[in-house]
Amino acid sequence: MEAASERGFDYHFVVEEKAMHDFIVRSIVKAGADESQGESVARMLLYADSRGHFSHGINRLQLYIKDLQTNTCNSKGKPKILKQKGGTAFVDGDNALGSVVGEFCTELAISLAKKHGIGWVTANNSNHFGAAGRYGHLAADAGLIGFAMTNTSPLVFPTRASQKALGTNPLACVAPAENGDHFALDMAISTVSLGKVEVANRKEKEAVPHGWGANSKGVEEQNPKVILDKGGLLPLGGIEERGGYKGSGLGMMVDLLCGVLGGAHFGKNVRAWAKSHTKADLGQCFIALDPECFADGFAQNLKQFLDEMRNLEPTDPKLPVRVPGDFSKSHGALIAHSGGLVYHKSQIEQLQKLAKDIDAPFFDTKPFQKP
Amino acid sequence: MEAASERGFDYHFVVEEKAMHDFIVRSIVKAGADESQGESVARMLLYADSRGHFSHGINRLQLYIKDLQTNTCNSKGKPKILKQKGGTAFVDGDNALGSVVGEFCTELAISLAKKHGIGWVTANNSNHFGAAGRYGHLAADAGLIGFAMTNTSPLVFPTRASQKALGTNPLACVAPAENGDHFALDMAISTVSLGKVEVANRKEKEAVPHGWGANSKGVEEQNPKVILDKGGLLPLGGIEERGGYKGSGLGMMVDLLCGVLGGAHFGKNVRAWAKSHTKADLGQCFIALDPECFADGFAQNLKQFLDEMRNLEPTDPKLPVRVPGDFSKSHGALIAHSGGLVYHKSQIEQLQKLAKDIDAPFFDTKPFQKP
Repeated sequence: MEAASERGFDYHFVVEEKAMHDFIVRSIVKAGADESQGESVARMLLYADSRGHFSHGINRLQLYIKDLQTNTCNSKGKPKILKQKGGTAFVDGDNALGSVVGEFCTELAISLAKKHGIGWVTANNSNHFGAAGRYGHLAADAGLIGFAMTNTSPLVFPTRASQKALGTNPLACVAPAENGDHFALDMAISTVSLGKVEVANRKEKEAVPHGWGANSKGVEEQNPKVILDKGGLLPLGGIEERGGYKGSGLGMMVDLLCGVLGGAHFGKNVRAWAKSHTKADLGQCFIALDPECFADGFAQNLKQFLDEMRNLEPTDPKLPVRVPGDFSKSHGALIAHSGGLVYHKSQIEQLQKLAKDIDAPFFDTKPFQKP
Repeated sequence: MEAASERGFDYHFVVEEKAMHDFIVRSIVKAGADESQGESVARMLLYADSRGHFSHGINRLQLYIKDLQTNTCNSKGKPKILKQKGGTAFVDGDNALGSVVGEFCTELAISLAKKHGIGWVTANNSNHFGAAGRYGHLAADAGLIGFAMTNTSPLVFPTRASQKALGTNPLACVAPAENGDHFALDMAISTVSLGKVEVANRKEKEAVPHGWGANSKGVEEQNPKVILDKGGLLPLGGIEERGGYKGSGLGMMVDLLCGVLGGAHFGKNVRAWAKSHTKADLGQCFIALDPECFADGFAQNLKQFLDEMRNLEPTDPKLPVRVPGDFSKSHGALIAHSGGLVYHKSQIEQLQKLAKDIDAPFFDTKPFQKP
């Protein structure tokens, strides 16, 4: 519970995983897709909520439903392989739900990696696929190192630019270590997600830290209201002299491997965030790599590496050193202790509204109790 | 000359490439390696100096000579393939000069990519390989997308740690676009290199920007003297609330793919910077990917992507938007105009001392003239 407590316990309700799963399936079916697609979306959203990545969990259900209702996402989409050579494959996502494309491509990358040591799959014609780390974890569950990347709607100012022309373009890398341990990096190339600025604004903070966002001209800005009013995010590092050009370059690399290599939309041409006026045509990249093809003892070596990092003397004794994935793991422990997924009341209220709108039966909740 | 002028013209001497090349070969041969290894080192250092990456050019010759003189690097080293499956290969660097290992592995990755669409090569038992972007460019010259990564000596404090346990662990990605254009990302995962802090200190600046470095306890510090006196670098982003944990996570990812996957030294166990008391045993990763395996028209699409970025309205009209590699390209134009490599006088003085120490004939210089 240690790391989870560092994040605070700002929860009010507990929901059984099965109940939430069934609600998601019901909602997606109501919106026109079939049950197997609903199951895929449920796996995607529960992955995120069970790790405390609320910005990629049930909060996003409404967006997927809107894409289905407007037919800008193909409710009957079936991804297909367009080219295959050695360890590589090129996939047409058929404008299916992002989770459906992501699971298809990850399974393909895993099977290519088992045969060729490495599987590198690029897809176009895809949609928002949730938390990138989820696809990395699917590969890690098969004993492989898994990567996933996607381009996204332009929310970030490239260094020096006065126009948002890059997405938050997440990059995930997940690797299995001994005794069920993992390295699980899942990061946007912006300093923070838009969600963090929204939370600061809701809490009426006057300023967010340097490097988070900019005003509508791309000039660094700390007032969350100004950032949210036609401003946007800054790439990791913030302004140029603090290294922001590296975050900007990383974001372009992700887009190159997703949008450009996939022949999908890229850069400023990706559709605006949360708009369902036209299809998204996102580019995505999924990689699986077999550690057996390299030095012996990868899982043991990785465990040693992770533990050596965690055991470094911290600068502040109250804040122990973490490796990527540790916060998610502690959230998992909180859920096991609480007997279900934990939510803030605003999330449950938003879902009740959604359930009413689409006329889907709701689920039971229990009150959250601090451990 | 536009972008080069943004960096200032702090040069005093011009040296013909051929003269510098021959001097490097002579020096490496004096230190005990054969001519072909000297040629490899010359290609590595001239790559960096011709692009204005002085921290990875001739400035580093002394380090390579020291490694050879102390026999902590194998002057007769010949990298060999230990395992090969599909698109992957695992290489023993045989403790050869880093440039020799890097060229061997990149050529191997290229030939694997031509056959399997993708080549992924991991090496252990290697040494400092200069600028990572060089290996990416070798792949790009073959029409492929090239990546290179290496772990390095611990100079960076992982987020929350009071001990330097990560290298600057560079990551390069180079891709060929239409009409000879390139995307050429080559970045350390620290906000800046140690060299930038040293330059600030030499210029007697009282403070460097936030996010560059920390004191000996890992606490952010702006005084370059304190950073250089047992302090160190911060990961890209700087402190935790400004996203430094992402730079820290990226640095761990690079080490995972290099040191951990290669069974080489990793993390805090890599030998200290510029010390030749024991062999380096660095882990390195080289990837080549054939864009022909994905959507048609990659070179054209990439050109469009790069030009759309460059043509974004800048926040400050005097500072146009750049994509990774543009500064290097403008330095190349400066060299073509000057008729040779350009250097600050301190670099030439340092080389004169080195030439005297190892009794190697020096080269001619011409005075630099601002274009």
